[in-house]
Amino acid sequence: MEPVRFKRKKVVLDTSLFVNPDVRGDFGKTPTEAIESFLFLAAQIPLLEFYMPSSIFKELMNFVEPEKISGDLLTILYQKSPSKHELTCPAFLLYELIEDIRERVNKGLRVAEKAVRNSFKANANEKELIQNLRRSYREALREEIIDSKEDVDLILLAKELDALLITADHGVIKWAEKLGIQWLFPNKFKDYLLSSIKKSKAFKVSI
Amino acid sequence: MEPVRFKRKKVVLDTSLFVNPDVRGDFGKTPTEAIESFLFLAAQIPLLEFYMPSSIFKELMNFVEPEKISGDLLTILYQKSPSKHELTCPAFLLYELIEDIRERVNKGLRVAEKAVRNSFKANANEKELIQNLRRSYREALREEIIDSKEDVDLILLAKELDALLITADHGVIKWAEKLGIQWLFPNKFKDYLLSSIKKSKAFKVSI
Repeated sequence: MEPVRFKRKKVVLDTSLFVNPDVRGDFGKTPTEAIESFLFLAAQIPLLEFYMPSSIFKELMNFVEPEKISGDLLTILYQKSPSKHELTCPAFLLYELIEDIRERVNKGLRVAEKAVRNSFKANANEKELIQNLRRSYREALREEIIDSKEDVDLILLAKELDALLITADHGVIKWAEKLGIQWLFPNKFKDYLLSSIKKSKAFKVSI
Repeated sequence: MEPVRFKRKKVVLDTSLFVNPDVRGDFGKTPTEAIESFLFLAAQIPLLEFYMPSSIFKELMNFVEPEKISGDLLTILYQKSPSKHELTCPAFLLYELIEDIRERVNKGLRVAEKAVRNSFKANANEKELIQNLRRSYREALREEIIDSKEDVDLILLAKELDALLITADHGVIKWAEKLGIQWLFPNKFKDYLLSSIKKSKAFKVSI
């Protein structure tokens, strides 16, 4: 009987896993420590292949001390941009994106109008009003939406590789859902790695 | 020798052709008149097939007196939505759209901040400031961008049918250019029809 052949599962990582203290918790106190812990675990899992879009990797490098990071990074976490000139996106998603943006743009104008009206009230404080405006405007236009090329990189790379996407970005998760991409919140990622180590060991014994 | 076979050329129409007085000029004084003139010319051109996305057609019907429009409309101007669940859009356009929106959103915030700051100046007038805000905000966020599902309908239908797109919308034209869609500004459309009538007659003689 032929041995069963396993295809390695691909995993795409967002920076939040290492950079955001709320989700990094399990991995280490600093981004550098978090990367080292990840490499230590990932090296024990031949069943998984880890990727990061080059744009996201570049972002990550701004947060770490490169000289402290093991060269294992190069063979464990591959940098790859999605094939953006070959990939396509279903047209109905274009409708959803345009409609979503349209609503947000209208909401942004209402936020701005309110700020101007409030500035005519007694005791209005310019600095405070501008701060509130910025916060409300960002909430209206930025939250739960993909709004940067790095976001698009993550989604398209995960789609291209048929990979599991590890991200805490709600806008990216929303699109992953639309496109049928598997995703996992970073706070579950350590458990996922530990369980994969067990699975990798069992797998080694059985072949 | 086999006779040469011609494939009918498809043309997708935007409402501006009939509704916008600046571009409708040649066709008639009212939208209803403009449609009638169009039907009169189009009926003489068997070489062309005319389409309008259903969403755009519905918009157009708000501007006309339906009882005055000839039933020829049904056999000359076909209503058809694009096949939005089958069509795809190249992924690199998603990047361009997201980057474009990102810049506009930032610009929108600067416009809003400026309005709030201006409201603290001496003699600031609330009504005037709000009006200026609306105008500048729309300029920053709406101009030369596709921002409605009707815009997406036009672009995708023209792409699906490999058609010539007649529109005065600069956002739509920009995307037509990106996607390799032929387009024509409505003020040239009457000439296009007249020339097509001549061509159709010559074609009839030659077969």
